[in-house]
Amino acid sequence: MTSKKAQFITVEGGEGVGKTTNMAFIRQWLDQHGIPYVATREPGGTPLAEDIRTLLVSPRDEPVAENTELLLMFAARAQHLAQVIRPALARGQWVLCDRFTDATYAYQGAGRGVAMEKIAQLEALVQGELRPDLTLLLDIPVDQGMARANGRGAPDRFELEKLSFFNAVRDCYLARAAADPSRFCLIDAMQSLELVQRAIAAALQQFFERIHG
Amino acid sequence: MTSKKAQFITVEGGEGVGKTTNMAFIRQWLDQHGIPYVATREPGGTPLAEDIRTLLVSPRDEPVAENTELLLMFAARAQHLAQVIRPALARGQWVLCDRFTDATYAYQGAGRGVAMEKIAQLEALVQGELRPDLTLLLDIPVDQGMARANGRGAPDRFELEKLSFFNAVRDCYLARAAADPSRFCLIDAMQSLELVQRAIAAALQQFFERIHG
Repeated sequence: MTSKKAQFITVEGGEGVGKTTNMAFIRQWLDQHGIPYVATREPGGTPLAEDIRTLLVSPRDEPVAENTELLLMFAARAQHLAQVIRPALARGQWVLCDRFTDATYAYQGAGRGVAMEKIAQLEALVQGELRPDLTLLLDIPVDQGMARANGRGAPDRFELEKLSFFNAVRDCYLARAAADPSRFCLIDAMQSLELVQRAIAAALQQFFERIHG
Repeated sequence: MTSKKAQFITVEGGEGVGKTTNMAFIRQWLDQHGIPYVATREPGGTPLAEDIRTLLVSPRDEPVAENTELLLMFAARAQHLAQVIRPALARGQWVLCDRFTDATYAYQGAGRGVAMEKIAQLEALVQGELRPDLTLLLDIPVDQGMARANGRGAPDRFELEKLSFFNAVRDCYLARAAADPSRFCLIDAMQSLELVQRAIAAALQQFFERIHG
């Protein structure tokens, strides 16, 4: 391994795309290539960021305002960046992160209807110029993903009600990938696991060769 | 009391200016004039905002990044606005708030060195066009305020070390008041309590007459 700049890789995707299994595969690939890395997740990744995550997800009587949720999400991200992501990259370790700001655009923006401009402002404020170097987007049609996530053949009525939300999330992810093909690698997660992982390995290999080219 | 738009009044000032005593005096003035109001404080004012305040003030091993603190402060403010301040104003109740965004400019901005532009961005994102209608700034030289706050004649070495911080806070408050004289009313808190409260009553009376003029 040469001493090229450490890389920031994120993995994105909706429900049931196989993120957990494939995160493990990517770690294995990095290990096999002797690349030092930190694997982490959002929201969370530090004790304070996990406390903020707890505030975000705990049920409470008080409705959580849209701006409150968005600012808490970016507060957790700011802490994660300061304590984990930036120090790792500065030490020369790659960072592999399960979800990052693309998920905020997809879930809070497209899903919940938060203005994309607000998210972009907070992204710039918190991240400055820092963006992932590579984003692996695992993609699957929403009904297939929900069926997999629930281990059932067909979504129930409750899941059907939320289809529009998850369709908006998926459409946003796909639009972001189309708009930034040099950062995104779109992986068709409908294929067999073997083919998915062959596609991921090829994407990582190509990325690795590009940065060492 | 006519049905004019409900007003948003904030009280600002550094350490030892007599904010608690004078908040009580303002409440009494509003009661005497038959003005319905909600008295509240920042950071806090709702259960979730108080939980965020707790995250902000709890000692922890992990250093809290500057952006994390700033975003948590505005997350608490977003919740306070959504749950308390905007609903009260919409119901026709005045809002009397112990510290608001001027304090963020003074303490986080001038005191800690957070870029004012960041604060202004978050202010616009969270508040939109909403600004206090009247801000009573209680002002006192820093050494006098610290002596009062500590009930002692002179600051000790630790307090002396922080003088530059509190001087920056005071200078920022004074500069903001000078830049926006139609919103701010500067109260010289070095006077006797009787004279301070006479000045506050006069300011409230003048404000009341202006909005009913």
